[in-house]
Amino acid sequence: MTYCLGILLPEGLVLASDSRTNAGVDQIATVRKLSILEDPDKAVIALLSAGNLATTQTVVTTLKQAAGTGTPERDLFLHNSMFDVAQTVGGLLRRILERDGQYVEKFGDPNGTFLLAGQIRGEPPRLFQIYSPGNFVEATPRNNYLQIGEMKYGKPILDRALRFDCSLARAAKLALVSFDATIRSNLSVGPPIDILCYETDSFSTRNLMKYKNNDPYFIDLRARYSEGIQAAVDGIPEPRLCPDG
Amino acid sequence: MTYCLGILLPEGLVLASDSRTNAGVDQIATVRKLSILEDPDKAVIALLSAGNLATTQTVVTTLKQAAGTGTPERDLFLHNSMFDVAQTVGGLLRRILERDGQYVEKFGDPNGTFLLAGQIRGEPPRLFQIYSPGNFVEATPRNNYLQIGEMKYGKPILDRALRFDCSLARAAKLALVSFDATIRSNLSVGPPIDILCYETDSFSTRNLMKYKNNDPYFIDLRARYSEGIQAAVDGIPEPRLCPDG
Repeated sequence: MTYCLGILLPEGLVLASDSRTNAGVDQIATVRKLSILEDPDKAVIALLSAGNLATTQTVVTTLKQAAGTGTPERDLFLHNSMFDVAQTVGGLLRRILERDGQYVEKFGDPNGTFLLAGQIRGEPPRLFQIYSPGNFVEATPRNNYLQIGEMKYGKPILDRALRFDCSLARAAKLALVSFDATIRSNLSVGPPIDILCYETDSFSTRNLMKYKNNDPYFIDLRARYSEGIQAAVDGIPEPRLCPDG
Repeated sequence: MTYCLGILLPEGLVLASDSRTNAGVDQIATVRKLSILEDPDKAVIALLSAGNLATTQTVVTTLKQAAGTGTPERDLFLHNSMFDVAQTVGGLLRRILERDGQYVEKFGDPNGTFLLAGQIRGEPPRLFQIYSPGNFVEATPRNNYLQIGEMKYGKPILDRALRFDCSLARAAKLALVSFDATIRSNLSVGPPIDILCYETDSFSTRNLMKYKNNDPYFIDLRARYSEGIQAAVDGIPEPRLCPDG
Protein backbone atom coordinates (compact mmCIF):
# COMPACT_ATOMS: atom_id res chain seq x y z
CA MET A 1 0.00 0.00 0.00
CA THR A 2 0.86 3.64 0.26
CA TYR A 3 -0.09 6.64 2.32
CA CYS A 4 -0.30 10.11 0.77
CA LEU A 5 -1.64 13.24 2.45
CA GLY A 6 -2.42 16.69 1.10
CA ILE A 7 -3.24 19.69 3.31
CA LEU A 8 -4.64 23.02 2.05
CA LEU A 9 -3.84 26.12 4.13
CA PRO A 10 -3.96 29.88 3.64
CA GLU A 11 -0.14 29.84 3.71
CA GLY A 12 0.05 27.13 1.04
CA LEU A 13 0.10 23.35 0.74
CA VAL A 14 1.68 20.48 2.64
CA LEU A 15 2.03 17.37 0.49
CA ALA A 16 3.48 14.16 1.90
CA SER A 17 3.97 10.60 0.74
CA ASP A 18 5.66 7.46 1.98
CA SER A 19 8.01 5.42 -0.23
CA ARG A 20 7.07 1.77 0.17
CA THR A 21 5.74 -0.30 -2.68
CA ASN A 22 5.06 -3.97 -2.36
CA ALA A 23 3.60 -6.94 -4.16
CA GLY A 24 3.09 -9.26 -1.21
CA VAL A 25 5.41 -9.10 1.79
CA ASP A 26 8.45 -10.55 0.01
CA GLN A 27 8.75 -7.98 -2.78
CA ILE A 28 9.26 -4.63 -1.14
CA ALA A 29 10.89 -1.64 -2.78
CA THR A 30 11.33 2.08 -2.27
CA VAL A 31 9.60 4.35 -4.77
CA ARG A 32 9.00 8.08 -4.83
CA LYS A 33 5.28 8.71 -5.02
CA LEU A 34 5.47 12.51 -5.13
CA SER A 35 6.11 13.95 -8.59
CA ILE A 36 6.40 17.64 -9.41
CA LEU A 37 6.02 19.53 -12.67
CA GLU A 38 7.26 23.13 -12.66
CA ASP A 39 6.77 25.92 -15.16
CA PRO A 40 9.11 28.50 -13.62
CA ASP A 41 7.29 31.47 -12.09
CA LYS A 42 3.95 30.29 -13.57
CA ALA A 43 2.95 26.89 -12.18
CA VAL A 44 3.90 24.25 -9.64
CA ILE A 45 1.89 21.05 -10.05
CA ALA A 46 2.36 18.03 -7.76
CA LEU A 47 0.95 14.52 -8.14
CA LEU A 48 0.91 12.00 -5.29
CA SER A 49 -0.05 8.49 -6.30
CA ALA A 50 -1.51 5.35 -4.73
CA GLY A 51 -2.69 2.04 -6.12
CA ASN A 52 -1.30 0.09 -9.04
CA LEU A 53 2.22 1.43 -9.63
CA ALA A 54 2.26 0.57 -13.35
CA THR A 55 -0.95 2.56 -13.84
CA THR A 56 0.11 5.61 -11.85
CA GLN A 57 3.64 5.68 -13.29
CA THR A 58 2.22 5.56 -16.82
CA VAL A 59 0.02 8.57 -16.07
CA VAL A 60 2.82 10.55 -14.45
CA THR A 61 5.45 9.74 -17.07
CA THR A 62 3.07 10.59 -19.91
CA LEU A 63 2.32 13.95 -18.28
CA LYS A 64 6.01 14.66 -17.67
CA GLN A 65 6.89 13.89 -21.27
CA ALA A 66 4.12 16.13 -22.55
CA ALA A 67 4.83 19.08 -20.22
CA GLY A 68 5.68 22.16 -22.24
CA THR A 69 5.20 20.45 -25.62
CA GLY A 70 1.79 22.00 -26.29
CA THR A 71 0.14 18.58 -26.78
CA PRO A 72 -3.61 18.97 -26.17
CA GLU A 73 -5.10 16.88 -23.33
CA ARG A 74 -1.62 16.08 -22.05
CA ASP A 75 0.41 19.25 -21.53
CA LEU A 76 -0.65 20.48 -18.12
CA PHE A 77 1.08 23.83 -18.64
CA LEU A 78 -1.53 24.74 -21.27
CA HIS A 79 -4.06 25.27 -18.47
CA ASN A 80 -4.86 28.44 -16.55
CA SER A 81 -6.68 26.63 -13.75
CA MET A 82 -5.97 23.64 -11.52
CA PHE A 83 -9.54 22.52 -12.16
CA ASP A 84 -8.65 22.02 -15.82
CA VAL A 85 -5.44 20.24 -14.81
CA ALA A 86 -7.55 17.86 -12.70
CA GLN A 87 -9.79 17.15 -15.69
CA THR A 88 -6.78 16.37 -17.86
CA VAL A 89 -5.17 14.07 -15.28
CA GLY A 90 -8.50 12.32 -14.61
CA GLY A 91 -9.14 11.91 -18.34
CA LEU A 92 -5.69 10.41 -18.93
CA LEU A 93 -6.09 8.01 -15.98
CA ARG A 94 -9.45 6.94 -17.38
CA ARG A 95 -8.02 6.30 -20.86
CA ILE A 96 -5.06 4.31 -19.51
CA LEU A 97 -7.36 2.12 -17.41
CA GLU A 98 -9.67 1.64 -20.40
CA ARG A 99 -6.67 0.48 -22.43
CA ASP A 100 -4.80 -1.63 -19.83
CA GLY A 101 -7.38 -2.51 -17.17
CA GLN A 102 -8.87 -5.62 -18.77
CA TYR A 103 -5.40 -7.17 -19.19
CA VAL A 104 -4.24 -6.34 -15.67
CA GLU A 105 -7.41 -7.41 -13.85
CA LYS A 106 -6.60 -11.11 -14.19
CA PHE A 107 -3.48 -10.54 -12.10
CA GLY A 108 -4.57 -7.85 -9.66
CA ASP A 109 -6.28 -4.51 -9.20
CA PRO A 110 -5.32 -2.11 -12.04
CA ASN A 111 -6.76 0.96 -10.32
CA GLY A 112 -4.86 4.00 -9.18
CA THR A 113 -5.71 7.25 -7.43
CA PHE A 114 -4.00 10.62 -7.15
CA LEU A 115 -3.78 13.67 -5.01
CA LEU A 116 -3.24 16.63 -7.32
CA ALA A 117 -2.15 19.92 -5.82
CA GLY A 118 -0.41 23.09 -6.76
CA GLN A 119 -0.81 26.62 -7.95
CA ILE A 120 -1.15 28.27 -11.34
CA ARG A 121 -0.53 32.02 -11.45
CA GLY A 122 -3.85 33.87 -11.09
CA GLU A 123 -5.34 31.32 -8.71
CA PRO A 124 -4.74 30.41 -5.07
CA PRO A 125 -3.20 26.97 -4.35
CA ARG A 126 -5.69 24.14 -4.82
CA LEU A 127 -5.89 20.48 -3.81
CA PHE A 128 -7.83 17.65 -5.51
CA GLN A 129 -8.35 13.92 -5.10
CA ILE A 130 -8.68 12.04 -8.41
CA TYR A 131 -10.41 8.68 -8.32
CA SER A 132 -9.84 5.71 -10.64
CA PRO A 133 -12.88 6.51 -12.82
CA GLY A 134 -11.26 9.89 -13.56
CA ASN A 135 -13.68 11.98 -11.50
CA PHE A 136 -12.42 14.13 -8.63
CA VAL A 137 -13.21 16.25 -5.57
CA GLU A 138 -11.55 19.40 -4.28
CA ALA A 139 -10.48 20.30 -0.76
CA THR A 140 -12.04 23.37 0.87
CA PRO A 141 -11.30 25.37 4.03
CA ARG A 142 -13.91 23.32 5.88
CA ASN A 143 -12.50 20.01 4.65
CA ASN A 144 -8.91 21.00 4.15
CA TYR A 145 -7.07 17.70 3.94
CA LEU A 146 -7.30 14.72 1.61
CA GLN A 147 -5.74 11.28 1.96
CA ILE A 148 -5.23 8.33 -0.38
CA GLY A 149 -4.01 4.80 0.30
CA GLU A 150 -3.65 3.45 3.83
CA MET A 151 -5.29 6.48 5.43
CA LYS A 152 -7.17 5.37 8.53
CA TYR A 153 -4.33 5.03 11.04
CA GLY A 154 -3.15 8.58 10.46
CA LYS A 155 -6.58 10.24 10.38
CA PRO A 156 -7.36 10.65 14.12
CA ILE A 157 -4.41 12.98 14.79
CA LEU A 158 -5.48 15.19 11.87
CA ASP A 159 -9.10 15.25 13.03
CA ARG A 160 -7.95 16.27 16.50
CA ALA A 161 -5.19 18.76 15.81
CA LEU A 162 -5.23 20.12 12.26
CA ARG A 163 -6.92 23.46 11.69
CA PHE A 164 -7.27 25.44 8.45
CA ASP A 165 -5.53 28.46 9.94
CA CYS A 166 -2.40 26.66 11.14
CA SER A 167 1.03 27.45 9.76
CA LEU A 168 2.80 25.44 7.05
CA ALA A 169 5.43 24.27 9.52
CA ARG A 170 2.84 23.12 12.07
CA ALA A 171 0.90 21.27 9.37
CA ALA A 172 4.14 19.59 8.24
CA LYS A 173 4.74 18.52 11.84
CA LEU A 174 1.22 17.05 12.06
CA ALA A 175 1.75 15.30 8.73
CA LEU A 176 4.88 13.64 10.11
CA VAL A 177 2.99 12.53 13.24
CA SER A 178 0.24 11.14 11.00
CA PHE A 179 2.83 9.20 8.98
CA ASP A 180 4.53 7.93 12.12
CA ALA A 181 1.20 6.54 13.41
CA THR A 182 0.65 4.79 10.07
CA ILE A 183 4.17 3.37 9.82
CA ARG A 184 4.01 1.97 13.37
CA SER A 185 0.71 0.19 12.75
CA ASN A 186 1.04 -0.94 9.14
CA LEU A 187 3.93 -2.74 7.45
CA SER A 188 2.93 -1.65 3.96
CA VAL A 189 3.76 2.02 4.60
CA GLY A 190 7.42 2.95 5.07
CA PRO A 191 10.00 5.73 5.02
CA PRO A 192 11.53 7.84 3.63
CA ILE A 193 8.73 10.39 3.75
CA ASP A 194 8.79 13.06 1.05
CA ILE A 195 7.21 16.37 2.06
CA LEU A 196 6.70 19.45 -0.04
CA CYS A 197 5.71 22.57 1.90
CA TYR A 198 4.58 24.86 -0.87
CA GLU A 199 4.29 28.55 0.06
CA THR A 200 1.44 30.45 -1.60
CA ASP A 201 2.64 32.58 -4.56
CA SER A 202 6.22 31.31 -4.24
CA PHE A 203 6.08 29.17 -7.41
CA SER A 204 9.00 27.34 -5.89
CA THR A 205 9.72 23.83 -4.60
CA ARG A 206 12.51 24.97 -2.30
CA ASN A 207 10.76 23.41 0.72
CA LEU A 208 10.96 19.85 -0.59
CA MET A 209 12.20 17.66 2.24
CA LYS A 210 12.92 13.97 2.68
CA TYR A 211 12.76 12.34 6.12
CA LYS A 212 14.55 9.04 6.46
CA ASN A 213 14.08 6.86 9.53
CA ASN A 214 17.40 8.07 10.93
CA ASP A 215 16.73 11.76 10.35
CA PRO A 216 17.50 13.51 13.68
CA TYR A 217 14.41 15.73 13.51
CA PHE A 218 12.12 12.77 12.71
CA ILE A 219 13.69 10.71 15.53
CA ASP A 220 13.14 13.58 17.96
CA LEU A 221 9.55 14.14 16.76
CA ARG A 222 8.66 10.47 17.26
CA ALA A 223 10.24 10.34 20.72
CA ARG A 224 8.57 13.54 21.90
CA TYR A 225 5.19 12.52 20.52
CA SER A 226 5.36 9.10 22.16
CA GLU A 227 6.26 10.71 25.48
CA GLY A 228 3.43 13.20 25.00
CA ILE A 229 0.93 10.39 24.37
CA GLN A 230 2.11 8.56 27.49
CA ALA A 231 1.69 11.78 29.47
CA ALA A 232 -1.77 12.34 27.97
CA VAL A 233 -2.84 8.83 28.98
CA ASP A 234 -1.26 9.16 32.42
CA GLY A 235 -3.14 12.43 32.91
CA ILE A 236 -6.53 10.71 32.62
CA PRO A 237 -7.86 9.18 35.84
CA GLU A 238 -8.58 5.47 35.48
CA PRO A 239 -12.20 4.36 35.26
CA ARG A 240 -13.71 3.01 38.45
CA LEU A 241 -14.32 -0.69 38.04
CA CYS A 242 -17.34 -2.37 39.56
CA PRO A 243 -19.51 0.77 39.32
CA ASP A 244 -22.39 -0.84 41.23
CA GLY A 245 -20.29 -2.77 43.76
CA MET B 1 -19.64 -1.07 10.58
CA THR B 2 -18.59 -1.88 14.10
CA TYR B 3 -15.53 -1.72 16.27
CA CYS B 4 -14.80 -4.41 18.85
CA LEU B 5 -11.62 -4.76 20.89
CA GLY B 6 -10.37 -7.53 23.17
CA ILE B 7 -7.32 -7.17 25.43
CA LEU B 8 -5.63 -10.05 27.27
CA LEU B 9 -3.79 -9.19 30.50
CA PRO B 10 -2.42 -11.08 33.50
CA GLU B 11 -5.17 -9.43 35.58
CA GLY B 12 -7.90 -10.52 33.17
CA LEU B 13 -9.64 -9.31 30.03
CA VAL B 14 -10.92 -5.98 28.73
CA LEU B 15 -13.66 -6.43 26.12
CA ALA B 16 -15.25 -3.45 24.42
CA SER B 17 -17.73 -2.85 21.60
CA ASP B 18 -19.57 0.06 20.08
CA SER B 19 -23.33 -0.01 19.45
CA ARG B 20 -23.92 1.31 15.96
CA THR B 21 -25.38 -0.80 13.22
CA ASN B 22 -26.25 0.57 9.84
CA ALA B 23 -27.39 -0.38 6.38
CA GLY B 24 -26.39 2.74 4.48
CA VAL B 25 -26.32 6.10 6.22
CA ASP B 26 -30.10 6.45 6.53
CA GLN B 27 -30.82 3.29 8.51
CA ILE B 28 -28.91 3.57 11.74
CA ALA B 29 -29.74 1.73 14.93
CA THR B 30 -28.23 0.94 18.31
CA VAL B 31 -27.43 -2.71 18.95
CA ARG B 32 -25.50 -4.42 21.71
CA LYS B 33 -22.64 -6.36 20.16
CA LEU B 34 -21.27 -7.81 23.40
CA SER B 35 -23.05 -10.96 24.57
CA ILE B 36 -22.18 -12.92 27.69
CA LEU B 37 -22.93 -16.49 28.71
CA GLU B 38 -22.34 -17.34 32.36
CA ASP B 39 -22.24 -20.68 34.14
CA PRO B 40 -22.01 -19.43 37.74
CA ASP B 41 -18.64 -20.05 39.37
CA LYS B 42 -17.52 -22.19 36.38
CA ALA B 43 -17.42 -20.17 33.18
CA VAL B 44 -17.78 -16.67 31.78
CA ILE B 45 -17.86 -16.61 27.97
CA ALA B 46 -18.18 -13.38 25.97
CA LEU B 47 -18.82 -12.94 22.26
CA LEU B 48 -18.26 -9.63 20.44
CA SER B 49 -19.55 -9.54 16.90
CA ALA B 50 -18.92 -7.66 13.66
CA GLY B 51 -20.20 -8.02 10.13
CA ASN B 52 -23.64 -9.13 8.99
CA LEU B 53 -25.95 -8.68 11.97
CA ALA B 54 -28.40 -11.39 10.88
CA THR B 55 -25.52 -13.89 10.71
CA THR B 56 -23.93 -12.97 14.03
CA GLN B 57 -27.26 -12.72 15.88
CA THR B 58 -28.23 -16.18 14.62
CA VAL B 59 -24.98 -17.62 15.98
CA VAL B 60 -25.29 -15.87 19.35
CA THR B 61 -28.99 -16.64 19.84
CA THR B 62 -28.48 -20.29 18.93
CA LEU B 63 -25.66 -20.53 21.47
CA LYS B 64 -27.70 -18.76 24.17
CA GLN B 65 -30.67 -21.08 23.62
CA ALA B 66 -28.43 -24.13 23.83
CA ALA B 67 -26.44 -23.05 26.90
CA GLY B 68 -26.92 -25.54 29.72
CA THR B 69 -29.14 -27.87 27.69
CA GLY B 70 -26.42 -30.43 27.01
CA THR B 71 -26.90 -30.20 23.21
CA PRO B 72 -23.69 -31.42 21.53
CA GLU B 73 -21.89 -28.91 19.29
CA ARG B 74 -24.03 -26.08 20.68
CA ASP B 75 -23.92 -26.03 24.48
CA LEU B 76 -20.74 -24.10 25.25
CA PHE B 77 -20.90 -25.10 28.93
CA LEU B 78 -20.09 -28.71 27.98
CA HIS B 79 -16.49 -27.64 27.31
CA ASN B 80 -13.54 -27.58 29.69
CA SER B 81 -11.42 -25.34 27.49
CA MET B 82 -11.94 -22.06 25.64
CA PHE B 83 -10.17 -23.66 22.68
CA ASP B 84 -13.04 -26.14 22.38
CA VAL B 85 -15.53 -23.28 22.77
CA ALA B 86 -13.82 -21.51 19.85
CA GLN B 87 -14.13 -24.64 17.72
CA THR B 88 -17.85 -24.88 18.51
CA VAL B 89 -18.52 -21.20 17.76
CA GLY B 90 -16.45 -21.37 14.54
CA GLY B 91 -18.22 -24.56 13.47
CA LEU B 92 -21.67 -23.04 14.06
CA LEU B 93 -20.74 -19.86 12.16
CA ARG B 94 -19.51 -22.02 9.27
CA ARG B 95 -22.75 -24.05 9.15
CA ILE B 96 -24.97 -20.96 9.27
CA LEU B 97 -23.04 -19.34 6.43
CA GLU B 98 -23.22 -22.58 4.44
CA ARG B 99 -26.98 -22.57 4.93
CA ASP B 100 -27.78 -18.85 4.49
CA GLY B 101 -24.80 -17.39 2.61
CA GLN B 102 -25.90 -18.14 -0.95
CA TYR B 103 -29.29 -16.45 -0.38
CA VAL B 104 -27.83 -13.39 1.32
CA GLU B 105 -24.95 -12.79 -1.11
CA LYS B 106 -27.27 -11.32 -3.76
CA PHE B 107 -28.12 -8.51 -1.34
CA GLY B 108 -24.88 -7.96 0.55
CA ASP B 109 -22.02 -9.56 2.40
CA PRO B 110 -23.29 -12.43 4.61
CA ASN B 111 -20.03 -12.80 6.55
CA GLY B 112 -19.51 -12.19 10.25
CA THR B 113 -16.59 -12.36 12.65
CA PHE B 114 -16.29 -12.68 16.42
CA LEU B 115 -14.01 -11.98 19.27
CA LEU B 116 -14.46 -14.81 21.76
CA ALA B 117 -13.06 -14.35 25.26
CA GLY B 118 -13.55 -15.62 28.74
CA GLN B 119 -12.45 -18.11 31.33
CA ILE B 120 -13.41 -21.69 32.14
CA ARG B 121 -12.39 -22.97 35.58
CA GLY B 122 -9.04 -24.74 35.32
CA GLU B 123 -7.69 -22.40 32.64
CA PRO B 124 -6.47 -18.80 32.59
CA PRO B 125 -8.59 -16.25 30.67
CA ARG B 126 -8.21 -16.61 26.91
CA LEU B 127 -9.02 -14.47 23.88
CA PHE B 128 -9.70 -15.59 20.28
CA GLN B 129 -10.65 -14.06 16.94
CA ILE B 130 -13.01 -16.21 14.87
CA TYR B 131 -13.10 -15.59 11.13
CA SER B 132 -16.02 -16.13 8.76
CA PRO B 133 -14.70 -19.50 7.51
CA GLY B 134 -14.89 -20.72 11.14
CA ASN B 135 -11.13 -20.81 11.74
CA PHE B 136 -9.57 -18.74 14.51
CA VAL B 137 -6.44 -17.35 16.14
CA GLU B 138 -5.62 -16.79 19.82
CA ALA B 139 -4.08 -13.76 21.51
CA THR B 140 -0.78 -14.23 23.36
CA PRO B 141 1.24 -12.06 25.76
CA ARG B 142 3.32 -10.85 22.83
CA ASN B 143 0.25 -10.03 20.73
CA ASN B 144 -2.22 -9.33 23.48
CA TYR B 145 -5.02 -7.49 21.75
CA LEU B 146 -7.36 -8.36 18.90
CA GLN B 147 -9.73 -6.12 16.94
CA ILE B 148 -12.60 -6.71 14.54
CA GLY B 149 -14.57 -4.30 12.36
CA GLU B 150 -13.45 -0.71 11.82
CA MET B 151 -10.11 -1.22 13.58
CA LYS B 152 -7.49 0.98 11.96
CA TYR B 153 -8.31 4.37 13.52
CA GLY B 154 -8.02 3.01 17.05
CA LYS B 155 -4.89 0.91 16.52
CA PRO B 156 -2.10 3.52 16.82
CA ILE B 157 -2.90 4.40 20.45
CA LEU B 158 -2.82 0.71 21.39
CA ASP B 159 0.47 0.15 19.55
CA ARG B 160 1.97 3.11 21.39
CA ALA B 161 0.61 2.73 24.91
CA LEU B 162 -0.77 -0.75 25.64
CA ARG B 163 1.52 -3.19 27.41
CA PHE B 164 0.80 -6.77 28.51
CA ASP B 165 1.61 -5.97 32.13
CA CYS B 166 -0.73 -2.99 32.49
CA SER B 167 -3.67 -3.02 34.89
CA LEU B 168 -7.26 -3.78 33.92
CA ALA B 169 -8.28 -0.18 34.66
CA ARG B 170 -5.46 1.28 32.54
CA ALA B 171 -6.32 -1.05 29.66
CA ALA B 172 -9.98 0.00 29.95
CA LYS B 173 -8.87 3.63 29.77
CA LEU B 174 -6.81 2.93 26.63
CA ALA B 175 -9.75 1.05 25.12
CA LEU B 176 -11.95 4.13 25.62
CA VAL B 177 -9.31 6.36 23.98
CA SER B 178 -9.13 3.89 21.07
CA PHE B 179 -12.92 4.03 20.70
CA ASP B 180 -12.94 7.82 20.92
CA ALA B 181 -10.40 8.03 18.06
CA THR B 182 -12.56 5.71 15.96
CA ILE B 183 -15.83 7.48 16.69
CA ARG B 184 -14.32 10.88 15.84
CA SER B 185 -13.02 9.68 12.47
CA ASN B 186 -15.74 7.27 11.34
CA LEU B 187 -19.49 7.77 11.27
CA SER B 188 -20.24 4.05 11.25
CA VAL B 189 -18.97 3.52 14.81
CA GLY B 190 -20.98 5.06 17.64
CA PRO B 191 -21.73 5.03 21.36
CA PRO B 192 -22.74 3.71 23.81
CA ILE B 193 -19.60 1.68 24.39
CA ASP B 194 -20.03 -1.54 26.34
CA ILE B 195 -16.96 -2.62 28.31
CA LEU B 196 -16.49 -5.74 30.37
CA CYS B 197 -13.41 -5.73 32.60
CA TYR B 198 -13.15 -9.37 33.57
CA GLU B 199 -10.92 -10.12 36.58
CA THR B 200 -8.99 -13.40 36.40
CA ASP B 201 -10.62 -16.16 38.50
CA SER B 202 -13.57 -13.92 39.45
CA PHE B 203 -16.11 -15.78 37.27
CA SER B 204 -18.14 -12.62 37.53
CA THR B 205 -19.39 -9.93 35.17
CA ARG B 206 -19.67 -7.29 37.89
CA ASN B 207 -17.38 -4.94 35.94
CA LEU B 208 -19.71 -4.58 32.98
CA MET B 209 -19.94 -0.89 32.14
CA LYS B 210 -21.75 1.17 29.54
CA TYR B 211 -20.41 4.57 28.46
CA LYS B 212 -22.89 6.85 26.74
CA ASN B 213 -21.76 10.04 25.02
CA ASN B 214 -22.88 12.11 28.01
CA ASP B 215 -21.17 9.93 30.63
CA PRO B 216 -19.18 12.34 32.85
CA TYR B 217 -16.12 10.08 32.95
CA PHE B 218 -16.11 9.60 29.15
CA ILE B 219 -16.54 13.36 28.61
CA ASP B 220 -13.61 14.05 30.96
CA LEU B 221 -11.45 11.36 29.30
CA ARG B 222 -12.06 12.81 25.84
CA ALA B 223 -11.35 16.37 26.95
CA ARG B 224 -8.15 15.44 28.80
CA TYR B 225 -6.87 13.28 25.97
CA SER B 226 -7.51 16.02 23.39
CA GLU B 227 -5.66 18.52 25.58
CA GLY B 228 -2.85 16.00 26.03
CA ILE B 229 -2.54 15.52 22.27
CA GLN B 230 -2.42 19.29 21.73
CA ALA B 231 0.29 19.54 24.37
CA ALA B 232 2.21 16.66 22.77
CA VAL B 233 2.08 18.38 19.38
CA ASP B 234 2.98 21.76 20.88
CA GLY B 235 5.97 20.14 22.61
CA ILE B 236 7.55 19.16 19.29
CA PRO B 237 9.66 21.86 17.63
CA GLU B 238 8.44 22.67 14.13
CA PRO B 239 10.48 21.42 11.19
CA ARG B 240 12.79 23.94 9.58
CA LEU B 241 11.48 24.77 6.14
CA CYS B 242 13.81 25.43 3.25
CA PRO B 243 16.58 23.19 4.64
CA ASP B 244 19.06 24.16 1.92
CA GLY B 245 18.10 27.81 1.80
